[in-house]
Amino acid sequence: MSQTFDYENLFDFVLHVFLQMGCSEEHAHLATEVLLSADLRGVDSHGVARLGGYIRLWEAGRINATPTIKIIYETPSTAVVDGDAGLGLVVAPFAMQVAIEKAEKAGTGWVSVKNSNHFGIAGYHAMMALPRQMIGMAMTNASALVAPTFSVERMLGTNPIAVAIPANNEPAFVADFATTTASNGKLEILQRKNQEAPEGWVQDAEGHTTTDANALKSGGAMLPLGGDREHGSHKGYALGSIVDIFSAVLSGASYGPWAPPFPAYVPMPENLPGEGLGHFLGAMRVDAFRPAADFTENMDNWIKRFKAAKPAAGQERVLIPGDPEREMEAIRRKEGIPLFESVVSDLKGVGDKMGVLFRG
Amino acid sequence: MSQTFDYENLFDFVLHVFLQMGCSEEHAHLATEVLLSADLRGVDSHGVARLGGYIRLWEAGRINATPTIKIIYETPSTAVVDGDAGLGLVVAPFAMQVAIEKAEKAGTGWVSVKNSNHFGIAGYHAMMALPRQMIGMAMTNASALVAPTFSVERMLGTNPIAVAIPANNEPAFVADFATTTASNGKLEILQRKNQEAPEGWVQDAEGHTTTDANALKSGGAMLPLGGDREHGSHKGYALGSIVDIFSAVLSGASYGPWAPPFPAYVPMPENLPGEGLGHFLGAMRVDAFRPAADFTENMDNWIKRFKAAKPAAGQERVLIPGDPEREMEAIRRKEGIPLFESVVSDLKGVGDKMGVLFRG
Repeated sequence: MSQTFDYENLFDFVLHVFLQMGCSEEHAHLATEVLLSADLRGVDSHGVARLGGYIRLWEAGRINATPTIKIIYETPSTAVVDGDAGLGLVVAPFAMQVAIEKAEKAGTGWVSVKNSNHFGIAGYHAMMALPRQMIGMAMTNASALVAPTFSVERMLGTNPIAVAIPANNEPAFVADFATTTASNGKLEILQRKNQEAPEGWVQDAEGHTTTDANALKSGGAMLPLGGDREHGSHKGYALGSIVDIFSAVLSGASYGPWAPPFPAYVPMPENLPGEGLGHFLGAMRVDAFRPAADFTENMDNWIKRFKAAKPAAGQERVLIPGDPEREMEAIRRKEGIPLFESVVSDLKGVGDKMGVLFRG
Repeated sequence: MSQTFDYENLFDFVLHVFLQMGCSEEHAHLATEVLLSADLRGVDSHGVARLGGYIRLWEAGRINATPTIKIIYETPSTAVVDGDAGLGLVVAPFAMQVAIEKAEKAGTGWVSVKNSNHFGIAGYHAMMALPRQMIGMAMTNASALVAPTFSVERMLGTNPIAVAIPANNEPAFVADFATTTASNGKLEILQRKNQEAPEGWVQDAEGHTTTDANALKSGGAMLPLGGDREHGSHKGYALGSIVDIFSAVLSGASYGPWAPPFPAYVPMPENLPGEGLGHFLGAMRVDAFRPAADFTENMDNWIKRFKAAKPAAGQERVLIPGDPEREMEAIRRKEGIPLFESVVSDLKGVGDKMGVLFRG
């Protein structure tokens, strides 16, 4: 059961919630735009469904609504940003802007971020590079839910990677994916519907693959992309580790099993090795490699060639990364954003708590 | 059936083969070192087993033994290198050296390469950064063997990614993996032994998963990491695509299905959109982000914590990326390198052709 809401109405509601938290006008607008970009693009797990979670972290004193976000270390092509425990939704765009400015001058810019929080969808930040004719990259570490290959311990988050690459007449290539077999959002949908998970998504407390979508509630763990060793889970484990190290070890954030948990009711791990959550943002000017027109013309050709690849039996077409999300955004801007009843009721609760009317 | 050979003897043989090809002393030494690093590290598919293939490409006029490798475009943190159709085994280290020098000055260095050939194992090039207290990255596109999700057409190579990250007292973190479920080398071993492949490694000409390890000989294709859509093959497809674009579209090499095939008997694709194969090399100075000692101390802690993660039932220990290859190298430097009879016989043939005695 779901109800549909206009983007503008949701925007207005979320904006006022962030303002009531004490965010500045600028931060509240930005945080709202980033959060809702997930709902528009169909990544429902990372949009308004998480607003209540952010509020609870703020109530628990883990999110600072009025952060002083700043560069604390830099070279011509790199920087480390301290997010001052602010919303990742505003810290990450700040850091991406630094990466873009570095890239303007040095060809590329790479920014590692510490002392931040959940930053919404990685794709938003990577896509900031596109209008500047740059390739954008964004990654983040996250609450530990994933067991390394051969292990039963939750050591890594779903640690997503986003890469946005501009084209000319074709829409941009935008990959944005968790380094696990399936995202936590997809698992949550199965839990809500009381359905089983495909094999290879989660394992039980002994490390055996299981179809129990609720396995994490009894000591289980999510699995790295690949699922098991025979199908390359050591590659997903390596990818998740690289994201963790670039985001948190390079910056001085808390890494691996020490990453701050998103649910406010989960106590912070002890003996933290760093500060807050970490992100890694990158920007590469296309014309730092070859004339931008040559590159984007080749990208158009790349995209057209891959779209024209022969479909498998029973398939209509081959997709370019970013196609489904872009098509979803076009639909939802026109027809509205559907929200599950449980999300609507959670948002009403947030509204009551923060003194903002949620209009259905 | 295999025979074991001393590293030094193999080195001497391969060196003289490259010298007979017409390579300079410097290039021959470097190419031999890179090629044999695969045999030492246990990546048998990428070592001397490929020497005959390189020679056949040289005979076919597709490899230039005396290339003038040069930078053709640059900014403070980027460059494009033209490999002049040289051995990737020497072009890639040249480009990595450029990346390292850029990183010395600008914090990071990123080099895209065109007009190159197969570069051996990606890990060798990424690891060049380690003694300089830098993070190294290496990727390459390759002969099209892999079908995108929902397709039956071979559009991408196994497009590997390597990332090497220095630690202090612990050995470095070195990930080096194909962006497919399994590497082509592993598939070739099954073909040689006449064994079936696990599901999720290859598909048949209609796009159905199959256990026929020889499926590529009848119109099948390798599968991106993930195997199928339900298990995240769109993520492996995105990763392989990113490698292809960074390596070949950024540099002006031939991308996607136009990547030059490694077997010399396979005709070159028509209407090539670029020149040769492409690589992408990167170096990031650790102290461009934070004091190197702080970083490497945290990396030691990261590695120790992950090694101490609780093993799954029936498993002895959790591995850090790079552990198996490093342990293999220690054994093979001491005990020698085992080669299959078919490889030995191929090497003898190479020796006869090039006038170099292969000593067993």
